[in-house]
Amino acid sequence: MDMKKYAAELIGTFWLTFAGCGSAVIAAGFPQVGIGLVGVSLAFGLSVVTMAYAIGHISGCHLNPAVTVGLAAGGRFPGGQVLPYIIAQVAGAIIAAWLLYVIASGAPGFDVTKGFASNGYDAHSPGHYSMVVCFITEVVMTMMFLFIIMGSTHGKAPAGFAPLAIGLALVMIHLVSIPVTNTSVNPARSTGPALFVGGWALGQLWMFWVAPLIGGALGGVIYRWLSDEPTGIVAGVKTA
Amino acid sequence: MDMKKYAAELIGTFWLTFAGCGSAVIAAGFPQVGIGLVGVSLAFGLSVVTMAYAIGHISGCHLNPAVTVGLAAGGRFPGGQVLPYIIAQVAGAIIAAWLLYVIASGAPGFDVTKGFASNGYDAHSPGHYSMVVCFITEVVMTMMFLFIIMGSTHGKAPAGFAPLAIGLALVMIHLVSIPVTNTSVNPARSTGPALFVGGWALGQLWMFWVAPLIGGALGGVIYRWLSDEPTGIVAGVKTA
Amino acid sequence: MDMKKYAAELIGTFWLTFAGCGSAVIAAGFPQVGIGLVGVSLAFGLSVVTMAYAIGHISGCHLNPAVTVGLAAGGRFPGGQVLPYIIAQVAGAIIAAWLLYVIASGAPGFDVTKGFASNGYDAHSPGHYSMVVCFITEVVMTMMFLFIIMGSTHGKAPAGFAPLAIGLALVMIHLVSIPVTNTSVNPARSTGPALFVGGWALGQLWMFWVAPLIGGALGGVIYRWLSDEPTGIVAGVKTA
Amino acid sequence: MDMKKYAAELIGTFWLTFAGCGSAVIAAGFPQVGIGLVGVSLAFGLSVVTMAYAIGHISGCHLNPAVTVGLAAGGRFPGGQVLPYIIAQVAGAIIAAWLLYVIASGAPGFDVTKGFASNGYDAHSPGHYSMVVCFITEVVMTMMFLFIIMGSTHGKAPAGFAPLAIGLALVMIHLVSIPVTNTSVNPARSTGPALFVGGWALGQLWMFWVAPLIGGALGGVIYRWLSDEPTGIVAGVKTA
Repeated sequence: MDMKKYAAELIGTFWLTFAGCGSAVIAAGFPQVGIGLVGVSLAFGLSVVTMAYAIGHISGCHLNPAVTVGLAAGGRFPGGQVLPYIIAQVAGAIIAAWLLYVIASGAPGFDVTKGFASNGYDAHSPGHYSMVVCFITEVVMTMMFLFIIMGSTHGKAPAGFAPLAIGLALVMIHLVSIPVTNTSVNPARSTGPALFVGGWALGQLWMFWVAPLIGGALGGVIYRWLSDEPTGIVAGVKTA
Repeated sequence: MDMKKYAAELIGTFWLTFAGCGSAVIAAGFPQVGIGLVGVSLAFGLSVVTMAYAIGHISGCHLNPAVTVGLAAGGRFPGGQVLPYIIAQVAGAIIAAWLLYVIASGAPGFDVTKGFASNGYDAHSPGHYSMVVCFITEVVMTMMFLFIIMGSTHGKAPAGFAPLAIGLALVMIHLVSIPVTNTSVNPARSTGPALFVGGWALGQLWMFWVAPLIGGALGGVIYRWLSDEPTGIVAGVKTA
Repeated sequence: MDMKKYAAELIGTFWLTFAGCGSAVIAAGFPQVGIGLVGVSLAFGLSVVTMAYAIGHISGCHLNPAVTVGLAAGGRFPGGQVLPYIIAQVAGAIIAAWLLYVIASGAPGFDVTKGFASNGYDAHSPGHYSMVVCFITEVVMTMMFLFIIMGSTHGKAPAGFAPLAIGLALVMIHLVSIPVTNTSVNPARSTGPALFVGGWALGQLWMFWVAPLIGGALGGVIYRWLSDEPTGIVAGVKTA
Repeated sequence: MDMKKYAAELIGTFWLTFAGCGSAVIAAGFPQVGIGLVGVSLAFGLSVVTMAYAIGHISGCHLNPAVTVGLAAGGRFPGGQVLPYIIAQVAGAIIAAWLLYVIASGAPGFDVTKGFASNGYDAHSPGHYSMVVCFITEVVMTMMFLFIIMGSTHGKAPAGFAPLAIGLALVMIHLVSIPVTNTSVNPARSTGPALFVGGWALGQLWMFWVAPLIGGALGGVIYRWLSDEPTGIVAGVKTA
């Protein structure tokens, strides 16, 4: 039973990382007709929309350690399941980055040191944003992400629309913040590519664990206060 | 009880202003792969989609003084709540502009006098549209926005879809009118950035209060006539 | 009662023509960050999504003589209402074109003879497509449009989603065929701008009445055959 | 009865191939304002969204031999219907390619040997990706596509949203993989244009049958395992 939940999280996070980072590495800068940052934003966000409809009824479709931690902080997810969920998510992201590496290597001129969709700050921020500002951005974006997740899966929200609200929130987050940190808000998505880039990407990886986890917990707690939810643990997320 | 409604409006308007203006300031003109006006339009509109699912069941998710006034004019919102709602919305927008200022300042070459997503007319219209035409555009766009809000939240409209209809209307409004006024249709969203730009932006701010409020009231009244709604006050907006 | 239906069609067709053509005239070619044909396609299609949720429960939200004729041919709309619906739609489109003319004239360098979002063939096709090919394109696109309208408003289709299906079909139609005819599939939308451009635009306007009406009727009849619908007249369209 | 299902599949696959490939051939590279790969991705994906609402209740709206085979492998579709469905799909795609050829020939400078939206590998991959990598990409993408189709049409998923989830998955797949293979994941869609391009396109067509069919079957089997579905055959797909 639980194994199937973990398998669903692994497959879902594979999809988010493979398609999101894949769109950036393969298609964003394609000559003349490349998809640009709008296309990359859509790919990341729609991966959540599509998977939330496909596996929401199996695992809740977190696909992101910050979501799992945020939902636990918000009283919607049992603490004892947090670690296995995170392990499954990170495993899915690593497999995705490996497969993307294999595919990208099949084209002439591929160079993993160009970034490979890694997240970074200072000299490795796409727009050279400073470390402090990058940290703030990741905290705020993940906080708002969890706020929207908590709200749209609330029992009073219209049933069935939460996957759209959540995925479109991820689209928005990317539309704004790719130039800042290349957008993480998801420690698993950051870990996959960093392992293949190595060096600076691994050195800066700490931020893309710390900031999203803080932001996610904040978002869960703030929404819980706003909606006067009871403080008991609710097992599993309502996505529909 | 009411304090939580105001808190929801503050957070929601923060999100609209931070993400909408943020996409314009940070990502629209990013070299090679910038999101352009399509991306900015999506960011503004999706902020309403996402927040309407998250807080529609708490505050009605207006996020905009022109929406609050228009719904009151349309008989859907109690007059006594108009002022506190507007105060909360403007507070959220100012906090958003302040945070965006902090973040944008973290990149080399940032210059707030370049516009910082402020609204303007004549020399400060992106396409140099005249004052009269800018005024007309803001009135008509806000009028149609309220018309769609009133219609899609009507009891006979399909339940649950109003946030999509309303947010996508805001996407459309931006797709058309960014070159005219940089698109306001929302006095709160205009006030935040204008405080940081100062000078001309504050001097032209009156239009982005007057025109949207007139347009919003018109839209509320026209739809009310069209749908033969009773004239009693209905407390709270049906968003789902 | 009926007057309010006509008013709804007038306002809705105003919105489609004003926002759709407006996005093309004002924002498509804006320097550096213009919305391009993707943005114009979204503006046209989303005008139908937004209005269908707002007035679908009032008038059925046709906004297009070819839709009204196609639904009548498909047995979903009473023949006696076809003419007043078309008159209201054309009136709305003309008002939209007039207002757009006023607004566009408020910017330096506006020149209505550059096209003003008119539809055309041969030398006036954006990609210089021949008259025969333009005619075929308009027939096929309108036929498929009505096929999707009939299907998604069928009693067995999921309730509430028809406005999305129909509006997104209009997005697709524009994504493909703007280079061919500037995309009409809607005689009212074509008539508004042609009156202001005059000359060749009026001379070629016949095609954007004849081809969409033929295509619409074909689509309605084909779907009716496919779904084994009874042949009695059904008053009003189910949009939700 | 069955004939109408086949007619629906033929018309739906016509729409997918005509609009998807048409957007690529006619509009992707249009000067200044072309829709690029984002527009092409939307056209392919939205063709599924729109048709799934229109004919999902008639035929299940597969529009793709890999979907039909994958659903059969997943226990959702009767084996005896696989062949007639595939024949109808391929017929629809060939008619679409023929009509697109007629229309594209109506513009000056059209040259079918430039590709005509055909799929290819090695020298005929848009980004010159190697044969092995192209094969892997098509298998993985089709596998994930079927996984999402199986999940979003599962009885526990929110009713009515499957067409959105499935169509948006196809948008994502194109956002990532057009530079690799020009994106097939659909043997019917590949067959239509290849017949008009001939030569290399026919020579490489085998991959766009073999890889999607393998991937589709894998996706169906994996989801079936994950969701503990009973192994009996279920006639017809739940799309709403």
